[in-house]
Amino acid sequence: MATPSAIIWSNNQLQLLDQRILPVQCEYLHYDDPYIVADAIRAMVVRGAPAIGITAAYGMVLAAQQLIKSSPASTAAWHLALRPAREALANSRPTAVNLFWALERCDRVIEERGNDGKVLQALTDLAIHIHAEDIQLNQRIGDFGASLIPADSIVYTHCNAGALATGGYGTALGVIRSAHRDGKIRGVFAGETRPWLQGARLTSWELMQDGIPVTLAIEGAAAHLMREHKPSWIIVGADRIAANGDAANKIGTYNLAIIAKHHGAKVMFAAPTSTFDALIDGPQIPIEQRPAEEITHSFGKRVAPENMVISNPAFDVTPAQLIDAIVTEHGIIHQPDRIKVLAHLAEGKRNNR
Amino acid sequence: MATPSAIIWSNNQLQLLDQRILPVQCEYLHYDDPYIVADAIRAMVVRGAPAIGITAAYGMVLAAQQLIKSSPASTAAWHLALRPAREALANSRPTAVNLFWALERCDRVIEERGNDGKVLQALTDLAIHIHAEDIQLNQRIGDFGASLIPADSIVYTHCNAGALATGGYGTALGVIRSAHRDGKIRGVFAGETRPWLQGARLTSWELMQDGIPVTLAIEGAAAHLMREHKPSWIIVGADRIAANGDAANKIGTYNLAIIAKHHGAKVMFAAPTSTFDALIDGPQIPIEQRPAEEITHSFGKRVAPENMVISNPAFDVTPAQLIDAIVTEHGIIHQPDRIKVLAHLAEGKRNNR
Repeated sequence: MATPSAIIWSNNQLQLLDQRILPVQCEYLHYDDPYIVADAIRAMVVRGAPAIGITAAYGMVLAAQQLIKSSPASTAAWHLALRPAREALANSRPTAVNLFWALERCDRVIEERGNDGKVLQALTDLAIHIHAEDIQLNQRIGDFGASLIPADSIVYTHCNAGALATGGYGTALGVIRSAHRDGKIRGVFAGETRPWLQGARLTSWELMQDGIPVTLAIEGAAAHLMREHKPSWIIVGADRIAANGDAANKIGTYNLAIIAKHHGAKVMFAAPTSTFDALIDGPQIPIEQRPAEEITHSFGKRVAPENMVISNPAFDVTPAQLIDAIVTEHGIIHQPDRIKVLAHLAEGKRNNR
Repeated sequence: MATPSAIIWSNNQLQLLDQRILPVQCEYLHYDDPYIVADAIRAMVVRGAPAIGITAAYGMVLAAQQLIKSSPASTAAWHLALRPAREALANSRPTAVNLFWALERCDRVIEERGNDGKVLQALTDLAIHIHAEDIQLNQRIGDFGASLIPADSIVYTHCNAGALATGGYGTALGVIRSAHRDGKIRGVFAGETRPWLQGARLTSWELMQDGIPVTLAIEGAAAHLMREHKPSWIIVGADRIAANGDAANKIGTYNLAIIAKHHGAKVMFAAPTSTFDALIDGPQIPIEQRPAEEITHSFGKRVAPENMVISNPAFDVTPAQLIDAIVTEHGIIHQPDRIKVLAHLAEGKRNNR
């Protein structure tokens, strides 16, 4: 049984699988308003950098649908009319750069088609294309990544960079799926990933559905389990990869990378090139602070003292020095640094022409 | 307001503060049966290596009370009659060695007083003595440890090695209390400590009651927060310290030690010498596996897929090479190794005579 799609576009309406209640309930929510889509991204109905990008593109389609009766007559008018929805979507979550990448692709479509009255159709085509393309990119990432995995490997992953975080197949879990298909995976460890438990709720569920042997553990057990089980690779996704090769991903990834190095395991980030931000270095990546209640409460029940001071960063940045490979749809960047990252992106653009 | 006692002995009855429901509820449970005390240790009504040792000693008193009508007439008869209760207590939790240390002290009292009919009184005196002594030891540990803390320090702790884990004052939190008294603490980070959330529920609460500034975070945020806040020391308790200086403590401690080293922070284990096991090295320390439900469920609700494979070790072992100081009631072992550990224990015994 394959993992259900995180995102469905059907009858000019967006459906999002409510990832907050998986795997106990499997339920789609329906959206026809871009502002409510922005709220859904913030509330983590949908999460994962590529999935957020796809969702934002569909959000722009919904925004254009709302304008169709009073259809703007020019590119400038379209930009102006769509700006509030675009801002709401752009402000939903700050760290994953795919969100901004998708919105910029929408901007270019508006630029090209604003004067000929075909903006809605062109945005719809674009969103569907971004969605379908993402699945293909993931399969290529998966195959490139799998080529690095030795036979009979234990691998370790964090959060969910799977089908549910993308258009389908997954980035880190795409690599694990391809490596499993190639008979290389003896077992996968998934960190439960506090506070949202994406590892417990999503990654475990995805891998079990594909018959890939997975063991779930708390983040605190990582060093103990790496010493015991000697994983060959730590494989994670990314929310933003900077020009110098530093990579932002779910909080706890930087922990894992340090612990992996201490135990001789290698560290792989798997992400499409839409995850790269060539304009900044790692220390400039904005880190989202999430609400304190994610930590002070559990299922609506308070677990910490009242008025507790909380630090709840949603992401951390792993420095390039700790990364052995960044895998994209164009191939592998070994021991990433600024020169290799920029060359990889330039090469990728040439190949895409 | 001081932290309430984890353990109260009153009217020949044992009371344990139910640490599973703190800080939302503050409730004592009453015990007059040693087998139910063993269950309470396993169920984590009381936890923390020194507190478990004290509780086990009171458990032996309750066992002796049950025998008093048919009072055994000899040392051999006392040993035989108390053996089932002793085994139940010894089998409650495997890792904290203080439990076995307390039971062995009880054995010696039975040995000395079994023939003169004073076993119950002698065991009662012993348990009360172990309890009171632990508070004094913690204050000495706290002062020794505080001497290592530089001015204006951020420190990082894990789980709860506080008043609630001991007779009172705490080991790691004893060090933090003494350092705070000396004006050296700018702030404390407490990891929430999955799956039982001792950091969120107990350490945060203890420190807030003492007016010590504490910030709570998930374990996954440790590397990010250490890079941002540059703690001088990671300060934790211990459940068992081996002859070679390796130290078992709550799962996640080994993670923290590796991450601390990566960021130039030092690593301190604070524990009374009753926590030492001079007969084995780190790799021989038994690691308790706790039930899967601690991870698959939260407040009785399932969060992971059904039939999920779980690894739930309750402790990990930090190798001596990562430890800068072990602090006991006798002083400080810098950069511990086998020779220093055994010399420290021998010196401590001489001083106790």
